[in-house]
Amino acid sequence: MQAEIISIGDELLIGQTINTNASWIGSELALIGVRVKWVTTLSDGKEDILFAIDQAMKRSDLVVVTGGLGPTKDDITKHTLVEYFDTELVVDQEVLSRVEGYFIKRGREMLEVNRLQAALPKNCEVIPNYHGTASGMWFEKEGCVLVSLPGVPYEMKGLMRDFVLDKVVEFFKVKALYHRTVLTTGIGESFLAKELEDWENRIHADGLGLAYLPSPGLVKLRISSYKGREGVELIDTYIKELELRMPSHVFGYENDTLAEVVGKLLVESNKTVGTVESCTGGGVANTLVSVPGASVYFSGSLVTYSYDLKSKLAFVNPDTLNNLGAVSEETVIEMAEGGRKQLGVDYCISISGVAGPDGGTVEKPVGTVWMAIAYEGKCETKKIILGDNRERNIQMTIFAALNMLRLTLLEKRR
Amino acid sequence: MQAEIISIGDELLIGQTINTNASWIGSELALIGVRVKWVTTLSDGKEDILFAIDQAMKRSDLVVVTGGLGPTKDDITKHTLVEYFDTELVVDQEVLSRVEGYFIKRGREMLEVNRLQAALPKNCEVIPNYHGTASGMWFEKEGCVLVSLPGVPYEMKGLMRDFVLDKVVEFFKVKALYHRTVLTTGIGESFLAKELEDWENRIHADGLGLAYLPSPGLVKLRISSYKGREGVELIDTYIKELELRMPSHVFGYENDTLAEVVGKLLVESNKTVGTVESCTGGGVANTLVSVPGASVYFSGSLVTYSYDLKSKLAFVNPDTLNNLGAVSEETVIEMAEGGRKQLGVDYCISISGVAGPDGGTVEKPVGTVWMAIAYEGKCETKKIILGDNRERNIQMTIFAALNMLRLTLLEKRR
Repeated sequence: MQAEIISIGDELLIGQTINTNASWIGSELALIGVRVKWVTTLSDGKEDILFAIDQAMKRSDLVVVTGGLGPTKDDITKHTLVEYFDTELVVDQEVLSRVEGYFIKRGREMLEVNRLQAALPKNCEVIPNYHGTASGMWFEKEGCVLVSLPGVPYEMKGLMRDFVLDKVVEFFKVKALYHRTVLTTGIGESFLAKELEDWENRIHADGLGLAYLPSPGLVKLRISSYKGREGVELIDTYIKELELRMPSHVFGYENDTLAEVVGKLLVESNKTVGTVESCTGGGVANTLVSVPGASVYFSGSLVTYSYDLKSKLAFVNPDTLNNLGAVSEETVIEMAEGGRKQLGVDYCISISGVAGPDGGTVEKPVGTVWMAIAYEGKCETKKIILGDNRERNIQMTIFAALNMLRLTLLEKRR
Repeated sequence: MQAEIISIGDELLIGQTINTNASWIGSELALIGVRVKWVTTLSDGKEDILFAIDQAMKRSDLVVVTGGLGPTKDDITKHTLVEYFDTELVVDQEVLSRVEGYFIKRGREMLEVNRLQAALPKNCEVIPNYHGTASGMWFEKEGCVLVSLPGVPYEMKGLMRDFVLDKVVEFFKVKALYHRTVLTTGIGESFLAKELEDWENRIHADGLGLAYLPSPGLVKLRISSYKGREGVELIDTYIKELELRMPSHVFGYENDTLAEVVGKLLVESNKTVGTVESCTGGGVANTLVSVPGASVYFSGSLVTYSYDLKSKLAFVNPDTLNNLGAVSEETVIEMAEGGRKQLGVDYCISISGVAGPDGGTVEKPVGTVWMAIAYEGKCETKKIILGDNRERNIQMTIFAALNMLRLTLLEKRR
């Protein structure tokens, strides 16, 4: 069974509004096992809407149309549907009293244009809207269904949840889709794919779906199945294999964040963390603090951008800075060890690098970053080489530092 | 002239990724006077992609395709374009050396799949990608243009800005739209609209366009004209009026960031800045450091999340903390003054607040934030009350603190 979405509205085409409705509907339909294959976004023009609806009804079983149901002149979806389904408008008394009640409750005068919203196509099933004045409509034609919903996100969501999703399951007798997402960091999309080639081939051979979803610093792997219970167990087996094969890269599942995962490990091991940051300017601290309740394991950080503050606050030997430079293994070791003492924490992360776009040399080009973690008299270091985009370098460094802390915490537990 | 966008990717259909690319491209094309009439989103299936491309090329002058250019098996856009434009793949030596350089610089092994990314259709113009390994492609057919771009947003934006937008203007000889964007902070969209009602009415009466583009912490006002020189002068007059009416809210123009504006003021006045941050966890420091060359005026920060570190590093009197709490005017004054000494800076910003979702009390509900700026023996304070979303509260606080510094620096210049 195949679904598609038609989103109507000029504001979606010129970038004034992002089409979050299509995304939300796509994810809700996926959860009940209905696959959206097309999303078409177009403006409020009758001919274009008729063309899009006709095309969609011919190739899909379910068509969800959003937008164009408001009371103003540029909202023409309802009249276009009347034409497409060759019917006429009749006043729905139940809807009329609800719309009247809506205005009475808010102490506002009801206009003629609002009264007209109770006039609905004769051959559709009206979907009651308890959140606004534009009703939804459910049309059936030759075994296909077209649902028309208002474009206001919270009204649309209300109608979908209260009515449409259940009715779709019932009407099409759909079998649920199951999917899980695994989050990886520290390895690029193409390396991951190469490393996992045999695993991926077996996934496809088993009739499951696999998608790589990269974003700065992480790659999400989504495995999906339309097979019901059998697929669930199969997916879990593949995920277990992935965890065993790439323990240093797999850091979480679904909507986890790296900062949350690290936070949980710190709470479980009853340890605290602090940072001494140069090129990231407090970005690691800021990311740690994005998690509610971070105060349990995070007490503070030093942002030591200048040589002076590196020495004064984190006790880095001025000779080290003068002889080896701020971006060096020795400097990040002294920063991490000094910071651990100064902040009184169990684990101290330090970072020093050339974020760019300027400041690179032949030996230390833009994108060179050193980091260290000091704990219990030990200190581990890591050097990474990134690109020349400052914003991205800072973002990738924050991920790399948090993942290094995650691995150190996991290692300690063994 | 009509444009349309084709977005390729399963993740867009099942709601895992919101299609922000289409929205961004729509708004950028609108700014050069090109109107997007259709956006089609579909999955990585060859037959569907061929169908969508053919339909788009028949009804539009410009077709922008995003996604499906990665090195993995599910990325099939390039091969589909080869078929549609009846051509073959040839290795582009320039692209190959750039891709090789990309891996050499990062000290990573280059895989065969990456090498294959340098094989590109013979009859297209290759659009160089300096931000990744997937090149863009510019095809022409019977006066129509198809542009294929990677789906990774920052790569796609780079190719659009560096190449595609200019070439579209040149190729289609589009008449430039003139527009200017004014950036405001510290006032919400609806308050701004109410305050500026008469101004906005006159703008519309003069045949200009006005759009409010809100995002957390700021509202952009875009004024546009299709009238050429006449419109230019008219827009400038309205912008001057706006500056005079709202000097504390208007902080910049076009792509300025608040951190850049503050950075420039610091450079001009030859002053340095540091921060002592609690609930923002280094977010103000991180934002200051996002500007290339920030080391001229930024030397470091203290993230003092715990009471202990507030006293130890920023010299806050423990009695102040115990009697008045961390979120109090007296505490932020002592943090700013202590930080100014400890960091040896001219201006020191301090912040302490309840970011939420927990930790609120009747007297200091979630969203209560105190901030201060110490300089030359003076100290100014400000209290703001925000909502209950942690992420948003932190973001809004960063904006408010930087705007407070901006106003203090401007005041000093008078």
